[in-house]
Amino acid sequence: MNQIIENKYKLDQAKFLDKVHVFAPATVANMICGYDILGFAVDYPGDEVIMKKTEKLGIEILTITGDEGKLPLDAMKNTVSHSAWKLFCDLGLQDSFGLSIELHKKMPIGSGLGSSAASTVSGLFALNELLGKPLSKNELLPYCMEGERLACGAAHADNVAPSLFGGITLIPSYEPILVRSLPVPENLYVTLIYSKVEVPTKDARKLIKDKVQLSKAIKQWGNIASLVAALYENDYEEIGRSMQDDIIEPNRSLLIPYFNEMKSISLENNALTFGISGSGPTVMALSKSKLGAENIEQKLNDFLTIKEIEHLSFVSKINQQGPYIKH
Amino acid sequence: MNQIIENKYKLDQAKFLDKVHVFAPATVANMICGYDILGFAVDYPGDEVIMKKTEKLGIEILTITGDEGKLPLDAMKNTVSHSAWKLFCDLGLQDSFGLSIELHKKMPIGSGLGSSAASTVSGLFALNELLGKPLSKNELLPYCMEGERLACGAAHADNVAPSLFGGITLIPSYEPILVRSLPVPENLYVTLIYSKVEVPTKDARKLIKDKVQLSKAIKQWGNIASLVAALYENDYEEIGRSMQDDIIEPNRSLLIPYFNEMKSISLENNALTFGISGSGPTVMALSKSKLGAENIEQKLNDFLTIKEIEHLSFVSKINQQGPYIKH
Repeated sequence: MNQIIENKYKLDQAKFLDKVHVFAPATVANMICGYDILGFAVDYPGDEVIMKKTEKLGIEILTITGDEGKLPLDAMKNTVSHSAWKLFCDLGLQDSFGLSIELHKKMPIGSGLGSSAASTVSGLFALNELLGKPLSKNELLPYCMEGERLACGAAHADNVAPSLFGGITLIPSYEPILVRSLPVPENLYVTLIYSKVEVPTKDARKLIKDKVQLSKAIKQWGNIASLVAALYENDYEEIGRSMQDDIIEPNRSLLIPYFNEMKSISLENNALTFGISGSGPTVMALSKSKLGAENIEQKLNDFLTIKEIEHLSFVSKINQQGPYIKH
Repeated sequence: MNQIIENKYKLDQAKFLDKVHVFAPATVANMICGYDILGFAVDYPGDEVIMKKTEKLGIEILTITGDEGKLPLDAMKNTVSHSAWKLFCDLGLQDSFGLSIELHKKMPIGSGLGSSAASTVSGLFALNELLGKPLSKNELLPYCMEGERLACGAAHADNVAPSLFGGITLIPSYEPILVRSLPVPENLYVTLIYSKVEVPTKDARKLIKDKVQLSKAIKQWGNIASLVAALYENDYEEIGRSMQDDIIEPNRSLLIPYFNEMKSISLENNALTFGISGSGPTVMALSKSKLGAENIEQKLNDFLTIKEIEHLSFVSKINQQGPYIKH
């Protein structure tokens, strides 16, 4: 990659900044029926990164907040810095100056909300902004995917793509990597409930069988095709109907306490659909209004409180812009 | 079904006609990447039916042309009359008058072009027109699917739906049965090549395994989702890229002489994509212009002639209207 980068990007030192403060959104991968190919970003929660140029060479994580001490401060082991350093070196800057990073996790880790992706994207987006935006988002994407490889062993894009591009993203192909932004219906709101049960992505993936019944696969691709059409047509009813999953959910939902009960409560309260966010344990319900999403949040909060399940909840629109500079 | 029909449809004898002459289009099921859920209709070839009211009760096939004597004249065994008779009886008309049918097959049988579907749709569409259109197309669909059950043992809709509705149709769900019309890009032309090797649908289905690799299924649903988006966006390049099939084609193509050679010739001549139409042996190439589609037709005709393979070829736009009255 080095050679290509050096020839392609003209760095303009006059555009370099001394410091940037960025936000990158959490994401809901799979969108229930689109395992490994669909995802969307939310306005909240997400990661914040403050990146500074330093005289000292190398890359350094100064501090991490909000992670309950779970994330490595070693910059080569943390997704916020690992891929950013790779890009920094590919741009030939490693002997010019150094980088320091403050990472403020404003979202749960290992939750199925794309925590590692938000860190990767915030680190790379911050670096690109610091350097005067030499790379486009399409050019940043392969670096983001490398961050996912560090975090979960495979270069998935279903979290990093929506976090980077915002909106609803489809990954129709990995070889070559293609990302397509899909239309986002105006009134779509998501309720997210994270129960504090850790389900590492690697373990959640082990629950998935490597073969599927053809009949189930056909049902799934019928639903995915229809979901895409429904997004173009603002057809909320069909968005809800099509977002179902007979392949992954039956196994993964076993790891999530009261999954079926939460699903029933959500659907009884007019959720368009309910399912697992990414590899869980966060669950998601979609609603056609903010009030509807907040009502479901309240009902699920009440239910989990009675059941004494420690949890967090969020209501958000679908984020349309991806990462941005905090002023 | 009888009870519902009788209550729902008010028949107006004043609207009944004595005779109708209809055309129903051939169809390309699967659209390569959408096994069992996608299909499109073509302007040509197709079936023509002349249906008349008769004083003699019952339903009778007077003549069939173009079938080389292969299709049954027994009205209960032929898809052109079987489902039409079912509807006729559901409407309570079986003691009022009878029906006679002339079926003119203007398309090959057992070819992967939805021959049985075109017959079913032409019979039911003719009956509905004869009776002053008491049923909508959505209401005719379940009867059309019953015709497919007679023809190939399962009530598939991926041929009858596009033949009935025209255009590109998606069947996102069978329970309940849903049909969605997708946008048809203006300049899409298809080249169809039918090599005279019979591949009955029942046998072709036997070649399909009942389990698929999850990795292949994921690739397939990424492609289907992207095809739908590309149809909405008039993105011809992605229509072509996404229409690929690693699940069904590797086995079914073995039954089609010179499949790989025809694919190479088509792609070398700027086909957007190439694959099997339905269960074959007809193959299809899509092009972005009529000239392009005709050029591929010529190249494949020349190739198969050298190889001494008896064949038929057609070039058509995607049919937008479905069946229609011939004047």
